[in-house]
Amino acid sequence: MTSRFRHAALVGKYQSHGMGPMLEEIAHILTRRGLEVSIEQATAQATGIAGYPALSADELGRSCDLAIVVGGDGTMLGIARHLARYGVPMVGINQGRLGFITDVPVQQLRHAINAVLSGDFEEESRAMLQGRVLRGGESIYEAVAMNDVVLRSGATAMLELRVAVDGQFVANFRADGLILASPTGSTAYALSAGGPILHPGVAGWLLVPIASHMLSNRPIVLPDSGEVTIDIVSGREPSANFDMQSLASLLHGDRIAVRRSAHRVRFLHPPGWNYYATLRRKLHWNEGAVPASHDGGAST
Amino acid sequence: MTSRFRHAALVGKYQSHGMGPMLEEIAHILTRRGLEVSIEQATAQATGIAGYPALSADELGRSCDLAIVVGGDGTMLGIARHLARYGVPMVGINQGRLGFITDVPVQQLRHAINAVLSGDFEEESRAMLQGRVLRGGESIYEAVAMNDVVLRSGATAMLELRVAVDGQFVANFRADGLILASPTGSTAYALSAGGPILHPGVAGWLLVPIASHMLSNRPIVLPDSGEVTIDIVSGREPSANFDMQSLASLLHGDRIAVRRSAHRVRFLHPPGWNYYATLRRKLHWNEGAVPASHDGGAST
Amino acid sequence: MTSRFRHAALVGKYQSHGMGPMLEEIAHILTRRGLEVSIEQATAQATGIAGYPALSADELGRSCDLAIVVGGDGTMLGIARHLARYGVPMVGINQGRLGFITDVPVQQLRHAINAVLSGDFEEESRAMLQGRVLRGGESIYEAVAMNDVVLRSGATAMLELRVAVDGQFVANFRADGLILASPTGSTAYALSAGGPILHPGVAGWLLVPIASHMLSNRPIVLPDSGEVTIDIVSGREPSANFDMQSLASLLHGDRIAVRRSAHRVRFLHPPGWNYYATLRRKLHWNEGAVPASHDGGAST
Amino acid sequence: MTSRFRHAALVGKYQSHGMGPMLEEIAHILTRRGLEVSIEQATAQATGIAGYPALSADELGRSCDLAIVVGGDGTMLGIARHLARYGVPMVGINQGRLGFITDVPVQQLRHAINAVLSGDFEEESRAMLQGRVLRGGESIYEAVAMNDVVLRSGATAMLELRVAVDGQFVANFRADGLILASPTGSTAYALSAGGPILHPGVAGWLLVPIASHMLSNRPIVLPDSGEVTIDIVSGREPSANFDMQSLASLLHGDRIAVRRSAHRVRFLHPPGWNYYATLRRKLHWNEGAVPASHDGGAST
Repeated sequence: MTSRFRHAALVGKYQSHGMGPMLEEIAHILTRRGLEVSIEQATAQATGIAGYPALSADELGRSCDLAIVVGGDGTMLGIARHLARYGVPMVGINQGRLGFITDVPVQQLRHAINAVLSGDFEEESRAMLQGRVLRGGESIYEAVAMNDVVLRSGATAMLELRVAVDGQFVANFRADGLILASPTGSTAYALSAGGPILHPGVAGWLLVPIASHMLSNRPIVLPDSGEVTIDIVSGREPSANFDMQSLASLLHGDRIAVRRSAHRVRFLHPPGWNYYATLRRKLHWNEGAVPASHDGGAST
Repeated sequence: MTSRFRHAALVGKYQSHGMGPMLEEIAHILTRRGLEVSIEQATAQATGIAGYPALSADELGRSCDLAIVVGGDGTMLGIARHLARYGVPMVGINQGRLGFITDVPVQQLRHAINAVLSGDFEEESRAMLQGRVLRGGESIYEAVAMNDVVLRSGATAMLELRVAVDGQFVANFRADGLILASPTGSTAYALSAGGPILHPGVAGWLLVPIASHMLSNRPIVLPDSGEVTIDIVSGREPSANFDMQSLASLLHGDRIAVRRSAHRVRFLHPPGWNYYATLRRKLHWNEGAVPASHDGGAST
Repeated sequence: MTSRFRHAALVGKYQSHGMGPMLEEIAHILTRRGLEVSIEQATAQATGIAGYPALSADELGRSCDLAIVVGGDGTMLGIARHLARYGVPMVGINQGRLGFITDVPVQQLRHAINAVLSGDFEEESRAMLQGRVLRGGESIYEAVAMNDVVLRSGATAMLELRVAVDGQFVANFRADGLILASPTGSTAYALSAGGPILHPGVAGWLLVPIASHMLSNRPIVLPDSGEVTIDIVSGREPSANFDMQSLASLLHGDRIAVRRSAHRVRFLHPPGWNYYATLRRKLHWNEGAVPASHDGGAST
Repeated sequence: MTSRFRHAALVGKYQSHGMGPMLEEIAHILTRRGLEVSIEQATAQATGIAGYPALSADELGRSCDLAIVVGGDGTMLGIARHLARYGVPMVGINQGRLGFITDVPVQQLRHAINAVLSGDFEEESRAMLQGRVLRGGESIYEAVAMNDVVLRSGATAMLELRVAVDGQFVANFRADGLILASPTGSTAYALSAGGPILHPGVAGWLLVPIASHMLSNRPIVLPDSGEVTIDIVSGREPSANFDMQSLASLLHGDRIAVRRSAHRVRFLHPPGWNYYATLRRKLHWNEGAVPASHDGGAST
């Protein structure tokens, strides 16, 4: 049976043990099904896999129509930010505990890849955040985030941040920091900071202050259609972090302006995949565990 | 100057002191501008205002193209559920502390009403929840809610509830209850139970368990496009409450099915009205108050 | 080897499957070691075990110097409230998932009981709450609670409660209810309602409002040395619940007065028992699970 | 009338406008009542007040039997850590919004100081944390904290921390940081991070993770009688912060060991002072404000 796809990109968390052989195995599966295979540059270098073109993320984006990513959610975040603009759909294979977005267990990789190549998958796409740092009106830094844009202080002092949406003043936040998360990011850092879960089908961003001084500064879900601006009013060593992977150091008066990216990340999940099932698994809802046993039930 | 509106409905929180004279004053303002005026039946009876037709909520909906509501957010909730299906826009006049949705102070009622009649207002609309109680497949109760549909136990025992969205299983919740709130309701009961704030521009519902046994059962924001079903698995004296104002007693096995209502509530706010300003005022963000003073500032 | 104990009480969650044979087995173990055995009345009746005196909880308290309780934490709560005043130490055997206070797995019951009889155990005691309901100055109801005293509304309306400590006004709470919990109860209902964990070695009570209207009404830890009074200001069908097992219906103006009981519950845990290990097990801290995966780790 | 005190220390937040004249006024009040007056060194230097001995914090502690502190809670924290070991009681005068521990409004300073000198005050004392940083078994840093000892990462990465109490393992925390707070500190940073309020009469510390990865890692109240150790397992640029005012940079493998200080801070409050009244004022409980208006009240 021929594949729906023509040219696959291979990306791996190359610090992981046994990554080289695993990627080679995947490359064999793919070539046997008639696909061209290219390997992400740093992955190729670290694992020493030869025999396939080693391309940069952007080159992969331009050439490939499928990406197989082996690692955890962090690995996926790293490459997805680059490939999203090219519309390359991604499959996430996880060596350990399954992630929110890397949901093929390594034991099923052969089966899962063959299914995907035959068109047997659930496609889903996720909105991304597109951020710029403005200094004196000039854009000095741009980046995309799949999970979140996080403003934090490097030092122990708190930050004061002024937030507006489409020019409408929202609030001044005095806090350890501020998280602007996508639905995908709502189950990451934002959840730890007290935010709710946002279903990926909701066209919204989540604004969550970290350890806010003001108890009524609760998480807010904003429409994702507007531009959110965050001005650095005060605080020491502030920085803007994109998916906690790329970072811009900031000065007072800097503005971070965030919009919905024109691109969405495309994921191909195993057949039968279901967002709520992932939630139940990752948040241990399916355990029937009752940490807090309230009731007694009569005993005597 | 002629009014954009033709026939106004008057509704008041008739238990409030001085409501009669205030409604008469408003009626004068309206008639002087050439509007017909009708008074909500129970309001007319309780205040003894005569000289205007006393109509039921549904009759008001069919006849009027504007409603002036005097009271608090609760008064507005009560009438808005009825008028929404007729598309009647509503102005909320508040005698005391301004509400989230009743935002004209009584001192400015003359000015505000004249402005509205002249077309000087900010119009805004809100999604509503439409719920049914199904028993043995039959719908035995239907109601609309502007804020929330709340499942609760009448007794001290907890409830077990099974939630699904469009037939996809979400989770079993063991809790004191469960709140399914609209963005409007996100600043009401859901906020007390730990939910985030949902901007009215977000097309989502908020699902918040009350005192959940499972610590990871965090609030979830769901798309408002699907049907949320909640099955009563166990628990004593369960009930479904619509805006905490109308109530259906439930049995085990009953299903509550909630969709977005075909109707939206229409509000006319004073010119310059702004959702975030209301949030800041109601949640005391504008006070500069810092309940938790962390930092010290060197002193010696 | 002779036992340190002379006369054991046997109490079981008699609705549980297989309870009869299990209690008979325990009775044999105990009699073989030379102990007298008595069975709690309702347990004897429900399981049909004959051949041992069937005594009421109070009679067990007066006669026995050890109690073996088979069931869950709820079963233990039910009997502990009665036996505490007699100072009878208790061993909790759990048929299912181990509880916070019933921590001997049924598979190890023979070993554990023999160890206890030989004096090989960790003894620990817990403070209890002693509550009275006062109406017009008269005490109309008294009860002891090991976990919590909970004020709740039977209907959907909220309660308004006035709390004072040793006559000093603390606050008026407008909420679904109010939990006054012991350290033991801090991992039960109070945890679901947002409270912290109180180590049993802390001489304090935990006051937690349920779904408070006021966002700054956070849980408070109070010294356990004073008298906490809670007055019913308003709300429909209020009740006072002791360990959610015994209940007093209340009227407006009623006062609930709570002090530390003169008695403590005594538990005998398996050797090596440790409070923190129980926390880790019950709250799944030991799983290394990271529901919220923030960081990514460079991938490309 | 003669004063109960003999020698007063004067300390001011010297960056504040008008601090010099205000301190001079206080000095006059004190000398007129026959007290010796010394000024804290840096305060004297910054304000240029002459005519009184300018002493270091330690010299003040050795000489004085009363301290008058003018500023906010941060100013008080800074000097209290030094004076506590000498048992000098402190009065806090606040120029702006009253603090938790600086509760004499500047308008009443004359009256309040005269009352204190005449013995008309409420004395109260607070426990303090005594921390050491151990590296390779050696103590390399020691400090006292009135509010909290905070472990934080300087960089954006999270910390992994291993906590034990008296050698008993509690848990590994993966979080932005960890706060170990006294009851005094429970209304400061710990409150922002989700902790409860600890009454100063409770002999406990509050352990609050900041944005913990594990949702069940809830705040814990520990007895203050033991030694809490926190080991730095991983994380970038970790530091230990005492009252967020003094800081030690840490390495992996470092251990922070915290005990209750042998010294307590002594505060002299205005007559009628009451802890709960301070809570109500600082947390705006007394406003009758109801941010979340749930109920409706019948309207029509």
